[in-house]
Amino acid sequence: MVTNNLVEHLLRTSYKDIPVEVLEHGKKSILNWLGVTIGATHHPSIDILLEVANSLGMTQQVSILGRPNKTDLLSAVLINGTASHVFDFDDTHLETIHHPSGPVAPVVFALGEKLGLPTKELLRAFVLGCETELRIANAVYPSHYQNGFHITSSTGVFGAAVAAGVLLKLDKEKMAMALGVAGTQSFGLREMFGTMTKPLHPGKAAQNGLHAALLVDKGFTSSLQVLEAERGFANVYSSSHNLERVTEDWGNVWELEKNSFKPYACGIVLHPSIDACIQLSEYADPDEVEEIRLTVHPYVHELTSKENPKKGLEGKFSIYHAGAIAFLEKDASENQFQDKKVIAKEVIQFRKKIHPIADDQVDKDKVVATLVLKGGRTKKLVVNHTIGSLQNPMTQGILNSKFINLCSSVIGRSASKQAIERVMNLEEYYSIQSVVEVIG
Amino acid sequence: MVTNNLVEHLLRTSYKDIPVEVLEHGKKSILNWLGVTIGATHHPSIDILLEVANSLGMTQQVSILGRPNKTDLLSAVLINGTASHVFDFDDTHLETIHHPSGPVAPVVFALGEKLGLPTKELLRAFVLGCETELRIANAVYPSHYQNGFHITSSTGVFGAAVAAGVLLKLDKEKMAMALGVAGTQSFGLREMFGTMTKPLHPGKAAQNGLHAALLVDKGFTSSLQVLEAERGFANVYSSSHNLERVTEDWGNVWELEKNSFKPYACGIVLHPSIDACIQLSEYADPDEVEEIRLTVHPYVHELTSKENPKKGLEGKFSIYHAGAIAFLEKDASENQFQDKKVIAKEVIQFRKKIHPIADDQVDKDKVVATLVLKGGRTKKLVVNHTIGSLQNPMTQGILNSKFINLCSSVIGRSASKQAIERVMNLEEYYSIQSVVEVIG
Repeated sequence: MVTNNLVEHLLRTSYKDIPVEVLEHGKKSILNWLGVTIGATHHPSIDILLEVANSLGMTQQVSILGRPNKTDLLSAVLINGTASHVFDFDDTHLETIHHPSGPVAPVVFALGEKLGLPTKELLRAFVLGCETELRIANAVYPSHYQNGFHITSSTGVFGAAVAAGVLLKLDKEKMAMALGVAGTQSFGLREMFGTMTKPLHPGKAAQNGLHAALLVDKGFTSSLQVLEAERGFANVYSSSHNLERVTEDWGNVWELEKNSFKPYACGIVLHPSIDACIQLSEYADPDEVEEIRLTVHPYVHELTSKENPKKGLEGKFSIYHAGAIAFLEKDASENQFQDKKVIAKEVIQFRKKIHPIADDQVDKDKVVATLVLKGGRTKKLVVNHTIGSLQNPMTQGILNSKFINLCSSVIGRSASKQAIERVMNLEEYYSIQSVVEVIG
Repeated sequence: MVTNNLVEHLLRTSYKDIPVEVLEHGKKSILNWLGVTIGATHHPSIDILLEVANSLGMTQQVSILGRPNKTDLLSAVLINGTASHVFDFDDTHLETIHHPSGPVAPVVFALGEKLGLPTKELLRAFVLGCETELRIANAVYPSHYQNGFHITSSTGVFGAAVAAGVLLKLDKEKMAMALGVAGTQSFGLREMFGTMTKPLHPGKAAQNGLHAALLVDKGFTSSLQVLEAERGFANVYSSSHNLERVTEDWGNVWELEKNSFKPYACGIVLHPSIDACIQLSEYADPDEVEEIRLTVHPYVHELTSKENPKKGLEGKFSIYHAGAIAFLEKDASENQFQDKKVIAKEVIQFRKKIHPIADDQVDKDKVVATLVLKGGRTKKLVVNHTIGSLQNPMTQGILNSKFINLCSSVIGRSASKQAIERVMNLEEYYSIQSVVEVIG
């Protein structure tokens, strides 16, 4: 029933049914996604994916965003989807720690480019894809995530299938089957965090979801009840769930509106600590510092406990590195998580001064930070709402700056500005080609 | 440690270390796999996969077995892997209900054809791939399967990665990482049984495992401890497990030797009941039958409880259909599971006479069958070891007949016989091209 209900809601939600604020937030999400994707497009992991795709002798159907290359439809979706999560700098649905654009936006860009679809239809597909994955995530969170699944890919594959299904105009039965083919491919172990395999997750989820819709469109068959069946997704992938959340308040509550954007290039759980360390750096020079105590929720501590990261990617899962670099450099952009930064002598030394303390009395999105100076003086501060939280969201201006910072060195400053203008007015353009052509 | 130990065992097991009986059983497994693959190569599900692959504009690198088509490496692996499971007529490791060749053989064929590798190296890769997936399956069975995972794909992806890794000559660290990239993609819901999505599982597992090895070969990074990590495969995908089984008795016990081949085109759990009904058909005409009671293990009953199948594929999960058709036609080959057979009036009528009874005193591989005639007379028989079981294995002759029955209408009788000869003497040929050229 749940799968069927979801599909009915999806098919009867037209572009006009989506409130203008949701569409605006959708475009911001796409802009943020495009920025982190272009910014990472020359990362070694993307070079490898492209090399393997090229070895298959692919045709040039769809653009690798920010590069001159094109590949076939499915490889492009894999590559763009992976690139978007390389920096761990993409959007976050805070309730489920889900990065919704990663599995959905590459499908929208790729099918939009290949089929020349109208931009309003692309926006509708993007919003509905995100709603689907986030509502399914809500239904199985937290047990699903606690069991060890990377929720972005494991539920994202449903979002990718829906975005593709909307664009391929699948009927009710086929849309349910596309969810079936997609959902049986749910995957992603949290063990992979800190390696190139983590960003591969949303890329593959996007690819698998799109492939599912392409197969079903041609007559491939699957279960019609992947979400609720006895051996379906919810029962198999979570120890407790509430499937009512998949469709409840449909049309009144939009999960995509709860999507937030990060000012820092690492997991959202580290952001309050970074904010705190940047603020504390105003009170002392590094060599005056005895220690910095960061009291955080145990969950934050557990996710970021890498004491001696060796690679930039590992640094993103280290409260020690993030706190140290934020204090030392007053920022935590992609630059602060380069490999060389993580192994720099002064950073390694300062990391020893960062002392996280787990305390379940502290909310997950807060930190109580205490700077202890060598003389014994202390300075304490509390960060309640980090920049990028729903209570303290990034403004359009900060979002634009983030985009320009990420993309200028790849596609140039002027193209970056043009891309912003075109994404934020997407519905006024005839096709996504208008965006793709300025970043190619 | 387990992942590392497994990799060490794999890398130091040379072709010469594999006993000749294991190699022989490996070749039988490949022959059986090739037969069911060629037999199903014109199934609608394969047409769809090929149509979607072609729409991507793929290059012609590797053969679709039994068809004149070629596709790129990764699509060929997906398509051949899926074809092999379409009839549910492939091999079975009885201890775990695993179909080991499905995810592994397509990788061996595809890389062998593309790279022109020596056949002894292909046999080694096949054996080691199968050992890997079956030993991992042993470690997580039964809880993993009971939780709802289709163990053939969910552990098969490891086997595919190892087969590819052996052929790409990955070193120790890279082989462990290939297991990581593969294992994080473990998937397959049992809810999909009875639809085209079930056979897609081993095909995709093969494709994902190969892709994992290709990526790692070029420098992609992953976890080195996918099996044993806190949030790794065993903990996340099973509620209880024994990881010692992954390497215990390595070199003394070969799981592949426990691989069995089916005389009937459906799940192995139905075979004793089919044997029984074929035997009972000697004692009465259909219209003399009042009922046939089939007392089976509750597990068998649960897996095959589709009372009113509408499609051939569903008939393979119906003890009612399998029992009826076996009695009526004295066989249960692919022919007996065609869509038209499942909806034939006389079959539907006779299905009502089949009464399964669940009894946990009956072993999973047995049936106690009672034929009740309209006059009240009864005939009871017990099938202890069905044809195709380890105790009553299919002879090379029956295996050859199965191959010829499946392949003659696709590639002709003479090519079928030639293919048998070449597979069963594979190590004497220079490359797999010798097999591929006779079936192309």
